[in-house]
Amino acid sequence: MDSMMMDAMSKDMKMMPGMDMMDMSVLQECMDACSAAEQAATICSTQMMDDCSPMCMNCADMCHTMMRTMMRMQGMTPGAMMSMLDATIAMCQVCMSECMAHADESMACKMCAQACQACMDACMKMKDMMADAVAA
Amino acid sequence: MDSMMMDAMSKDMKMMPGMDMMDMSVLQECMDACSAAEQAATICSTQMMDDCSPMCMNCADMCHTMMRTMMRMQGMTPGAMMSMLDATIAMCQVCMSECMAHADESMACKMCAQACQACMDACMKMKDMMADAVAA
Amino acid sequence: MDSMMMDAMSKDMKMMPGMDMMDMSVLQECMDACSAAEQAATICSTQMMDDCSPMCMNCADMCHTMMRTMMRMQGMTPGAMMSMLDATIAMCQVCMSECMAHADESMACKMCAQACQACMDACMKMKDMMADAVAA
Amino acid sequence: MDSMMMDAMSKDMKMMPGMDMMDMSVLQECMDACSAAEQAATICSTQMMDDCSPMCMNCADMCHTMMRTMMRMQGMTPGAMMSMLDATIAMCQVCMSECMAHADESMACKMCAQACQACMDACMKMKDMMADAVAA
Repeated sequence: MDSMMMDAMSKDMKMMPGMDMMDMSVLQECMDACSAAEQAATICSTQMMDDCSPMCMNCADMCHTMMRTMMRMQGMTPGAMMSMLDATIAMCQVCMSECMAHADESMACKMCAQACQACMDACMKMKDMMADAVAA
Repeated sequence: MDSMMMDAMSKDMKMMPGMDMMDMSVLQECMDACSAAEQAATICSTQMMDDCSPMCMNCADMCHTMMRTMMRMQGMTPGAMMSMLDATIAMCQVCMSECMAHADESMACKMCAQACQACMDACMKMKDMMADAVAA
Repeated sequence: MDSMMMDAMSKDMKMMPGMDMMDMSVLQECMDACSAAEQAATICSTQMMDDCSPMCMNCADMCHTMMRTMMRMQGMTPGAMMSMLDATIAMCQVCMSECMAHADESMACKMCAQACQACMDACMKMKDMMADAVAA
Repeated sequence: MDSMMMDAMSKDMKMMPGMDMMDMSVLQECMDACSAAEQAATICSTQMMDDCSPMCMNCADMCHTMMRTMMRMQGMTPGAMMSMLDATIAMCQVCMSECMAHADESMACKMCAQACQACMDACMKMKDMMADAVAA
């Protein structure tokens, strides 16, 4: 997501309680990480390695929904956002564990595992920032 | 979802740990409730009532993703499923609260609020069943 | 989709040019057929039969998008709707052809092929109705 | 989409009839343009400008589905792909026309209109390339 789109979003976002203290670059990184994980998992899901395909499809759908809801923070509460981030982290963890097991045999699985790990990291960073904003 | 589709699904599902003890009708009801909530929230999101539209879009996307992952239980762990159900419940709660406030002015909001409530109930029932299955 | 939801939708829809002449039951059947095809294709895509899985995933996504846009006819023109219906028919055709080849070995493929066929039929009926409405 | 992901995809893609002659950079640009249009339209749909929101939601869903199917070319025929590209172009046209009318009042609408235009251009380029590949 480019910085002009972020500007178009952030005026709405700043009106949410606690959101005025948020670092928009953390949000931007999290949306980009979700988008990258969706793409990597979608590609991986079609490679027909032994077991990972349904995990990858689940992960792609969850990461996509997470990305979209971050673009619509007006339709969100901090509590619901936290719960969505937990679900994304959980789903990425399942997908990553499975794809990591095939990483040596398949470039698609390796990239999927890496993208899931990056998405988990970005979601955790987002959670930390939200917890700080709510506590402040 | 009709019962023949459920039969096509359930042979895979029975292979998941703990899943052999599950009541497939609870799963079926939960998928149907997610599908109905997605549809009601999608319709409601286009009515342009004051504030509910972004909540409805978020809710529609989460309910859709929840429904899809229930159709792909092979790509799931009990923990990730619990976390997804929590996120769906949280998102339906946000959407329902907002739409309930417009229920007297808008038929679409009233139906959306009812569908969100039914989806929350079905997700909680699903969680209870899974907790029992894992504990058994 | 139940009839109360259709009522909530149809007041908006009647305002579209040509739409006041439409038979809402044809639209309702088409949305239901898209939803059923999405579900059948999603289940089928996880069965890991030889070749159909990527077709089924493509078909599920297209049918879902078709269903959603029919719920948001305010954001549509007759021309764009026709084009979307063509894409749904084309994608269902590809998925059905592939799944039909596995129909004897897999209940999921058989149901997917049937749901794709029903979705194609419903989309063609919808196209015919729209062509009549535009011509009138 | 980064180039390593494209490499992971392209080995499958090269096996499709006609696809061995395709310029993968055109495909990559088209997927990126679809992804950018989905994001811009999703943001724009929540701004509650007078009329564009349902168009933007329709456009976001179609662009997303287009992107995903380009990642799963194994599950595609040239004819179905052409039809999907036509639907994406048609939907982007509708959304762009509406958002262009609000471009002076809303940064989100301006960016959405630009992203839709870029997506249309990329889809047309993709169609040209496919037509050449099939004809060759």
